[in-house]
Amino acid sequence: MRPLLTDLYELTMAEVYLRSGMDGWAVFEMNVRPHRYRNVLVSAGVLAAAKEITELRFDEEDISYLRSLGKFSEEFLEYLRGFRFDGDVYAIPDGRVFFPGEPVMVVETSRIKGQILETMLLNRVAYQVNSASKALRIYHAAKGRMLLEFGARRGADEMAAVNVSRATYIAGWAGTSNLEAGKLYGIPVYGTMAHAFVQTYRTEFEAFLEFAKAYPESAIFLVDTYDTFAGIETAVEVILHLRDKLKLKGIRIDSGDLVELSRYARRRLKEAGLEDVVIVLSGDLNEWRIRDIVDRGEADAFGVGSEVAIPSDKPVLGAIYKLVEDEAGFKHKFSKGKVVIGGAKRVYRFYDGRGKILRDVVAHRSESYGGEPLLVQVVKGGEYVFEEDDLKSARERFLRDFSSVPEEYLNLDEEVDVAVEFSPKLKFG
Amino acid sequence: MRPLLTDLYELTMAEVYLRSGMDGWAVFEMNVRPHRYRNVLVSAGVLAAAKEITELRFDEEDISYLRSLGKFSEEFLEYLRGFRFDGDVYAIPDGRVFFPGEPVMVVETSRIKGQILETMLLNRVAYQVNSASKALRIYHAAKGRMLLEFGARRGADEMAAVNVSRATYIAGWAGTSNLEAGKLYGIPVYGTMAHAFVQTYRTEFEAFLEFAKAYPESAIFLVDTYDTFAGIETAVEVILHLRDKLKLKGIRIDSGDLVELSRYARRRLKEAGLEDVVIVLSGDLNEWRIRDIVDRGEADAFGVGSEVAIPSDKPVLGAIYKLVEDEAGFKHKFSKGKVVIGGAKRVYRFYDGRGKILRDVVAHRSESYGGEPLLVQVVKGGEYVFEEDDLKSARERFLRDFSSVPEEYLNLDEEVDVAVEFSPKLKFG
Repeated sequence: MRPLLTDLYELTMAEVYLRSGMDGWAVFEMNVRPHRYRNVLVSAGVLAAAKEITELRFDEEDISYLRSLGKFSEEFLEYLRGFRFDGDVYAIPDGRVFFPGEPVMVVETSRIKGQILETMLLNRVAYQVNSASKALRIYHAAKGRMLLEFGARRGADEMAAVNVSRATYIAGWAGTSNLEAGKLYGIPVYGTMAHAFVQTYRTEFEAFLEFAKAYPESAIFLVDTYDTFAGIETAVEVILHLRDKLKLKGIRIDSGDLVELSRYARRRLKEAGLEDVVIVLSGDLNEWRIRDIVDRGEADAFGVGSEVAIPSDKPVLGAIYKLVEDEAGFKHKFSKGKVVIGGAKRVYRFYDGRGKILRDVVAHRSESYGGEPLLVQVVKGGEYVFEEDDLKSARERFLRDFSSVPEEYLNLDEEVDVAVEFSPKLKFG
Repeated sequence: MRPLLTDLYELTMAEVYLRSGMDGWAVFEMNVRPHRYRNVLVSAGVLAAAKEITELRFDEEDISYLRSLGKFSEEFLEYLRGFRFDGDVYAIPDGRVFFPGEPVMVVETSRIKGQILETMLLNRVAYQVNSASKALRIYHAAKGRMLLEFGARRGADEMAAVNVSRATYIAGWAGTSNLEAGKLYGIPVYGTMAHAFVQTYRTEFEAFLEFAKAYPESAIFLVDTYDTFAGIETAVEVILHLRDKLKLKGIRIDSGDLVELSRYARRRLKEAGLEDVVIVLSGDLNEWRIRDIVDRGEADAFGVGSEVAIPSDKPVLGAIYKLVEDEAGFKHKFSKGKVVIGGAKRVYRFYDGRGKILRDVVAHRSESYGGEPLLVQVVKGGEYVFEEDDLKSARERFLRDFSSVPEEYLNLDEEVDVAVEFSPKLKFG
């Protein structure tokens, strides 16, 4: 975490707090506002951010830069030089499903430390939660078909792209085309070929043949460079030609009417006795187009790029990070139609007999509730204490949680009422 | 540039090219497809990307990871180990205005090297061009009012956020709240206060007073934490109270009907004899809302966050990187309604007598045209040769170019015909 990846005002406010002795105990929380396309959210990036809080240091270069602005006292710069996060953090761990309005992260610390973290925590967490939550919608729409993340070129930056690969893998996707994500996180990598490859050879047949000879175990032919119908014939020809030598055989269609073309392709492949050839579809896919293809078309796998790299239905997640309690009590906020219910919170989940989520109860930290705690302590007195923060565990948490989400919550079109209740103490205390 | 920030298929295709001896001279270009909200584009991130190409190396960790995939020959891994970009790159330098369809980058190299760069170049450049181009629209709408970039918390990642600060500064904005961008690039930093600050003190009056005492040279009071009308009164009170001690005095309104509230605020400030108090507006602003406020409201400065961090009108720029010429000739492509005109290109700009852009001519590299060359050589035989790649120069190029853009190109609502002509040789050669 870059300590200066923050808004100037976080530090000028902190300077004033220090001067006026307003640095008592304070609790901040991050939560996400409701949106009709984000009824169900998936935690992602939260554990890494919590860990990074504990490692946050302002180095001499940072201090010199801040001094050069002429806005900070030496006393405050000294405070920053000694900055060590020594509070507690509760988080809903990566991979878990949660809902709008529930705190995904609760930071219990001093006012200055909590304030300083605002911008950097939102930056590190919100985008990843948005990616993972979008990925859940697509995972739901794909109904078990394989999903491949192809968004590296559309990413906002190198690590933004890697984080998208990671978020989609958490949300049940099979893998990514992004080799850096494969290297850093061990995410399975997949790929086919580009139109430029087909154009490089004199004929489509030659292009497919050359590729199949090099990659007999993963020969997926891109059939829409010139004419898709002719491309399907070429693929059939090459597959029949090399039949015994090819292990995985497939075609990919990246443009046109994917429903019609995929149905045609399946029919044609069956006629040719090639029932085992997989059909991969790509090209501006989102959850709605995938739902339609699953209903009416033929697909074994989908490749999705832009729409998960930067989701166009909700490019910026409405995440907020707010002061919710201090020594003076709960900090409610009702202005501007944006309600913040005060109080240092915990979240408890209850299930029905079939293992489906019945309701979540958001309560004050002083209250005891039964149910499964969603917010778990990940930082204790400045030390990172959560152990299952590998990617595999996050994906397992997602798969378990996904199967517990009531079907009606997975509505892709409308905002739904999710059963999140606030304890009487939070509402009236 | 992370060498593995690429799609697997770039490397599997390269493996096949190497095996089948298809590694001759080849030219690739990046350009942007037309879109009604991106009629005028601003180059950003292009120079850094070009420089990074020359420094791109695959280290032993990368090679080991690739070997572990079982998809690459030792011969190819050896090729990657020795990878040094030794070709030429032409680019439209950061800050320059260009148009859809024009190559913003031309890479003249071998087929394998050009192919390997595809994903990473699109990742490094497209998002930044989108940010800068969105920033231009907002700059146009603001008609000279000060623009502040407040998007750090909405950024897709740390460096993505810094790149947005950089892109907006290039496009004429006054500065950013992002301290990391200030530190790394010397961009002026700005900030006011948050609602949490006002809530921290017993009264709004006390909050404003404490802040003003610490920051008499930049006291901008956020007036909408509780009731905006009352907040304006409090600000007036504090300013009158400290009048002689305050240098820059201002109020910020972050919610509600900004047109009505800003008009009320200006009236009230005038009544109180405070003509010199600046009004800063923020809260989900975009070019259309700013245009409306400039027309009907009162504002000296605007703070913009989400809409420039991740523009919702066009979250993913339609940038492509394509093979356009090889030893066999031009590579045109007409499929799918996405035309690629082949040929290794250069771009020449012509102006009218008033210094406005008359037309750009895109020609083949073998052709001589008059006019101002837009694509300049930035890498020569693998060496980075462009000198004016500091941020200040980029901003100056923008300001100069912006004043040369015909007014009708700056339409915020519709796709316009921009005068980009392709030479007969490109079209028919």
